[in-house]
Amino acid sequence: MTATAAARATAEALDAADPLASFRDRFVLPDPGLVYLDGNSLGRLPRSTAARLAAVVEQQWGDRLIRSWTEGWLDLPARVGDLIGTALLGAGPGQTVVSDSTTVNLYKLAAAALDARPGRRVVVTDRDNFPTDRYVLEGIVAARGLELRWIEADTVDGPQPADVAAVLDDDVALVSLSHVAYRSAAIADLPAITALAHDAGALVLWDLCHSGGSVPVDLDAGGADLAVGCTYKYLNGGPGAPAYLYVAHALQRELRSPIQGWWAQDDMFAMQRPFTPLPDARRFLTGTAPVLGLVAAEEGVRLLAEAGLDGLRAKSMALTAYAIELIDAWLVPFGFGLGSPRAAARRGSHVTVTHPGAAPLCDALVAAGVIPDFRPPDGIRLGLAALTTRFTDVHDGIAALRDLADSPAGGRRP
Amino acid sequence: MTATAAARATAEALDAADPLASFRDRFVLPDPGLVYLDGNSLGRLPRSTAARLAAVVEQQWGDRLIRSWTEGWLDLPARVGDLIGTALLGAGPGQTVVSDSTTVNLYKLAAAALDARPGRRVVVTDRDNFPTDRYVLEGIVAARGLELRWIEADTVDGPQPADVAAVLDDDVALVSLSHVAYRSAAIADLPAITALAHDAGALVLWDLCHSGGSVPVDLDAGGADLAVGCTYKYLNGGPGAPAYLYVAHALQRELRSPIQGWWAQDDMFAMQRPFTPLPDARRFLTGTAPVLGLVAAEEGVRLLAEAGLDGLRAKSMALTAYAIELIDAWLVPFGFGLGSPRAAARRGSHVTVTHPGAAPLCDALVAAGVIPDFRPPDGIRLGLAALTTRFTDVHDGIAALRDLADSPAGGRRP
Repeated sequence: MTATAAARATAEALDAADPLASFRDRFVLPDPGLVYLDGNSLGRLPRSTAARLAAVVEQQWGDRLIRSWTEGWLDLPARVGDLIGTALLGAGPGQTVVSDSTTVNLYKLAAAALDARPGRRVVVTDRDNFPTDRYVLEGIVAARGLELRWIEADTVDGPQPADVAAVLDDDVALVSLSHVAYRSAAIADLPAITALAHDAGALVLWDLCHSGGSVPVDLDAGGADLAVGCTYKYLNGGPGAPAYLYVAHALQRELRSPIQGWWAQDDMFAMQRPFTPLPDARRFLTGTAPVLGLVAAEEGVRLLAEAGLDGLRAKSMALTAYAIELIDAWLVPFGFGLGSPRAAARRGSHVTVTHPGAAPLCDALVAAGVIPDFRPPDGIRLGLAALTTRFTDVHDGIAALRDLADSPAGGRRP
Repeated sequence: MTATAAARATAEALDAADPLASFRDRFVLPDPGLVYLDGNSLGRLPRSTAARLAAVVEQQWGDRLIRSWTEGWLDLPARVGDLIGTALLGAGPGQTVVSDSTTVNLYKLAAAALDARPGRRVVVTDRDNFPTDRYVLEGIVAARGLELRWIEADTVDGPQPADVAAVLDDDVALVSLSHVAYRSAAIADLPAITALAHDAGALVLWDLCHSGGSVPVDLDAGGADLAVGCTYKYLNGGPGAPAYLYVAHALQRELRSPIQGWWAQDDMFAMQRPFTPLPDARRFLTGTAPVLGLVAAEEGVRLLAEAGLDGLRAKSMALTAYAIELIDAWLVPFGFGLGSPRAAARRGSHVTVTHPGAAPLCDALVAAGVIPDFRPPDGIRLGLAALTTRFTDVHDGIAALRDLADSPAGGRRP
């Protein structure tokens, strides 16, 4: 048996012992040969979603028409939000709603937080935060004449509590960070950083896009203030499915959305009253709920809830540990670096390898039927969604990358 | 032949002569007995939409997965926007995009307009504007310490140019109005009001929710600055389908969105550059495009484009004129009032009748298989979408309302 064959036998054995293996059959898999390592960018399609969408379109829209609003649609933002919050985020009911995009939710919550800390002039984030987070904060800070203060963190390990502490003072109104870094997968210490910020009198806004559904978040237990996240990655809600936002009970009466929309209005169909926002997280809703995206997100989240976050996290750690083992054995000799934390407890559900030829290698991988994500300048990101990724996928994907690196057209080129 | 039978024969003859009659067959109509007079709240389901959504879900999401972003999804906001703009709004390409909800778009454009008129302290709107428009403007004005100045307009005829002129001065930064009033259907004189506002140095933001797809808007010819509108009413994009926004070429370089999202970024996947917004209306995009809603909207708009706005408008005027004829004959004797303009050129595609018992009458109508909208305090709104509403629907719906009003449980009660 060759080393490669032995390695694949190991992967097959891991798949055979995987208690979540059967969940893969709950997804549409039209191309059995595809090695999809991008479920953290766009999650796969659950089988139930296609049927649910068809029913919502044909029956609820096509037949019941406007009556469907009072037959269930009006409740979707809070209902799906509560499902996400309770199943995946450690958030009690009434604090999570599904609304808008992550970008718009970041804007609403950041603006509301700044309004709640008048006189403070600083927003803190880190340089490796996801672009839209940085852009949104830059825009708000510029519009208000405030200061954006950057955390200088290790690009692999991400912002540590000490990095945050180093920039906190009593002029900081808001700290906004990603819980799991989009490139390195480093997990930020949510309770510790939140406590530090609170000690300084600041609020914290967490971006959960890369942690929701893959890593325990425990918002309530961690004393979190505010959070946002998307439903199209690990939550399998489909392309452009709406995002969620979390506002802790203790802040709900104090915070006001800068975008006062009719879906946030107490008794929205009365239509004549002055704006009086609802008393819970729904006060951050804006316009008409995107029904198709909401029901697709609900289907995706139901699968995660059924699998259970403990099992998802255990498999995710095993998948990323296995990936790092193969990266060390097969890719490091070709000049690849590991761009993710080595300690399983410190990383989310993706692993990034770095290489000067990452961009062409990614193109070649896709052509070979292996789909990762290229993340500039030099990262190849392998997303290992626990419900749909097999250990054999990890094996085959990294073996394909090794073979490309070992070819004249691959990584050995200057 | 009774008077009623004669009237229905007239309606049948009008249907038989309707050049757009065959478009009704392009929609899913599972309940042939339903009289749906609410296509201006939620448009009906086009047959092609169910098939298109299934293909997008099963093939583009399920099979092509993340690759679909570069295989067409990334272009959707501008592509569907341009289709709406050119087919329905009189807007040349590059000025209309589909994004977010009407509420969020109102916020972005109103904030951008105020930023472009520093030193001016007044926003003008009218008291009968749609609630979310009023709420959004109230929120922005309060956050900036500005003044909201109300136009006092006739509730049936809506704001006239003279009403607007009466409140304009050199302190006005923005005038924000609905092109077609959501209750009365009064059409505002877009070119005249825009010209008046420009003379005063102000910008104008139009809400086209109740005019897009039913009334010629002619944004470019009317000298419009900014506009928003939804796709789930006359555009038949489905529940919560994303909204559109229009920014005139002349303003695109000057205006900046308050919400700086990565979808507005030049070369969004470079990810490391400072925020540099795209040079056209896409600079008002925010987060990841809602693909399902976008393709559903595209299908709906294609039907309108195929029918042509001239034909849609002609049928719409005929439908509303016929409705008013029946209202005068059958409802006015029972104490109903006409809440919409009598001149066809002055009204959009719905007709509102007023009655002290409007709320219970609406409930009774729905129970009888006729679906209008109740609009507080006393309005019953009959939406007559040209592609799907027959003259016989108008006849049957108003006859049902007459019969209810003529019953002990109906309008004759105090």
